[in-house]
Amino acid sequence: VFEVNWDAEAAEKGGYEHFMIKEIYEQPKAVRETMSGRLAKDDSHIIFDELKWTPEEVAGINKIAIVACGTAYHAGIVGKYYLENLARIPVEVDVASEFRYRSPLVDDKTLVIVISQSGETLDTLAGLKEAKRLGAKTLAITNVVGSSIAREADHVIYTWAGPEIAVASTKAYTTQLVTLCMLSIYIAALRETLAAAQVKELIQGLRELPAQAHEILEDVEPIKTFAQQYGFNEDVFFIGRALDYCVALEGSLKLKEISYIHAEAYAAGELKHGTLALIIEGVPVIALATQPDVYEKMLSNIKEVKARDAVVIGIAMKGDDQIRNYVDHAIYIPDAHKYLAPLLAVIPLQLLAYYAAITRGCDVDKPRNLAKSVTVE
Amino acid sequence: VFEVNWDAEAAEKGGYEHFMIKEIYEQPKAVRETMSGRLAKDDSHIIFDELKWTPEEVAGINKIAIVACGTAYHAGIVGKYYLENLARIPVEVDVASEFRYRSPLVDDKTLVIVISQSGETLDTLAGLKEAKRLGAKTLAITNVVGSSIAREADHVIYTWAGPEIAVASTKAYTTQLVTLCMLSIYIAALRETLAAAQVKELIQGLRELPAQAHEILEDVEPIKTFAQQYGFNEDVFFIGRALDYCVALEGSLKLKEISYIHAEAYAAGELKHGTLALIIEGVPVIALATQPDVYEKMLSNIKEVKARDAVVIGIAMKGDDQIRNYVDHAIYIPDAHKYLAPLLAVIPLQLLAYYAAITRGCDVDKPRNLAKSVTVE
Repeated sequence: VFEVNWDAEAAEKGGYEHFMIKEIYEQPKAVRETMSGRLAKDDSHIIFDELKWTPEEVAGINKIAIVACGTAYHAGIVGKYYLENLARIPVEVDVASEFRYRSPLVDDKTLVIVISQSGETLDTLAGLKEAKRLGAKTLAITNVVGSSIAREADHVIYTWAGPEIAVASTKAYTTQLVTLCMLSIYIAALRETLAAAQVKELIQGLRELPAQAHEILEDVEPIKTFAQQYGFNEDVFFIGRALDYCVALEGSLKLKEISYIHAEAYAAGELKHGTLALIIEGVPVIALATQPDVYEKMLSNIKEVKARDAVVIGIAMKGDDQIRNYVDHAIYIPDAHKYLAPLLAVIPLQLLAYYAAITRGCDVDKPRNLAKSVTVE
Repeated sequence: VFEVNWDAEAAEKGGYEHFMIKEIYEQPKAVRETMSGRLAKDDSHIIFDELKWTPEEVAGINKIAIVACGTAYHAGIVGKYYLENLARIPVEVDVASEFRYRSPLVDDKTLVIVISQSGETLDTLAGLKEAKRLGAKTLAITNVVGSSIAREADHVIYTWAGPEIAVASTKAYTTQLVTLCMLSIYIAALRETLAAAQVKELIQGLRELPAQAHEILEDVEPIKTFAQQYGFNEDVFFIGRALDYCVALEGSLKLKEISYIHAEAYAAGELKHGTLALIIEGVPVIALATQPDVYEKMLSNIKEVKARDAVVIGIAMKGDDQIRNYVDHAIYIPDAHKYLAPLLAVIPLQLLAYYAAITRGCDVDKPRNLAKSVTVE
């Protein structure tokens, strides 16, 4: 027996025009909820009462497979980055509809993490069952208590994002990212792959996120105006490197889903291996440049598309004045820990998709052809 | 000192209008060359005199990382499928421009395979150097004898495709696939993961490829007519599952590169997690359905896009009469071993891209913004 604590009231739009924009604005609160009780008071470690794993248990894992669909798959790609870089375990991320049919190399030394907001995504559930059949240890990251996936997995971490009604997922993504970051720090501690100072810095970074997300949401006028003026009548390309590429994938999906614009994300360094042929005068390119380690390389890629007269919107960290010299419009996010920038960088992209859809007269909360929770193959 | 045995004569167009179409037609010969001397007379094993690896050496490898860009990256994705399914070693495929900057989990138990037609791709070369620095065993798959990548790697397998002049890669891709398939059988033998009958069936399948590729090229009129009539004024989507998805990626890149059509490939089961919103009346969808294990699932996905009135071109194996009931146009490839179907299925997609580009008046051999060999970041 399980209880669902959401009531109909909580699911109302509460003054917002659409569920999607309400949920975008709920992200500071949702992210705070996800972290609630899970960050040690002295920022020294992560607490997951629902896991209570031991170093021995974790030492028995030689590989992690992340299985998900859609937006949750994009969260998984960020998760790979977190887990490999922080906990130094190899991670493979699979689209669930491919994973379940491809005889994956999964055994009792594999931890399979499935991610699904609803906990009812059919392909993901089938992937989870396949993973169990192959003897893997399984962990579900989901938002819905008592969902099929939550009940099927060996372990569950709930994202506590509150009900997500809009078809286009927003707060589910950011809370999944927070969860994956906390999980990576948690596993890193058990594997002793992070110094205490690094852990502290990350946890302090996590604590700042709700206020930083709030800061972005306080001033959406430039994004709104831009979406209205520009209208996005052309196909759009998103580019980024490293974690910025992961965010680019999610940003392009948002634009597709609700504004029916053909958007596509590219690892910025890969563009010149073919897709650059599509970049001509006036083509909008959203260029993410929040990652310090590849910042200079990213500027080169921005110059490449500007040389073809693309219209470039740069997403950068506050304090980066240099980017203004290379892009047509700069959108700033607060200066965050580089690993946490994706959680903030995605917000302007969600807003851009939202206002582009409004401008184009699309039905934001119920985009054509799509269902909220995909319970068919 | 090394010798380059290609002469200027061999690089002429030889009666063809463009290098690209010449190179498409050279595929039967190129593929035969790649296999030359490498298939045991009795079809019992693969011969790689350039490797001469021992079971002990291969037992020391616990992971393979494939690093490449563009079309070679797409070949790498097929390579993962081959190596994991035939040799049962975990494989990770990375875009070189991402790999080199992401602190990959690579050590002396990793085999890093770099793939580059020219052997001069800058990001791939840098990825190779990074892999060596991390202590990995390295293997290059390249077409150019004595190229930088060939000289840098511990081991080299040449594809013997002959000079590829057109910017859009065609015979490089198919010969890379043949090489990766042979390599997978070779490693599988050392790891004893394939039964003798399976090896024989695959090698016999490889032997049939040149004639089968030739058969496709003998009757290109339907593809030509289709490209001319249709013109592809809309964005195009490619869908497939398993190996068909890998081919879809390459097919969409060809269309982008030379005909400047925004094409995008999707794992067919993933479409409903967002991109289905873009599928409306008249949108062309190229649906690959050559893989028996996921054939029924693929038909469901085809029905999904047909229900939105997409124009569907199906690519299927000869003898599949069922598909005609679901698609607007069916293009058949000869009935091949399921693992080798990608080598054949890609040919109609190359032709479609070529004739679409001709119809649209594009400069096929020198598409705008692109260089043949990318020696910059």
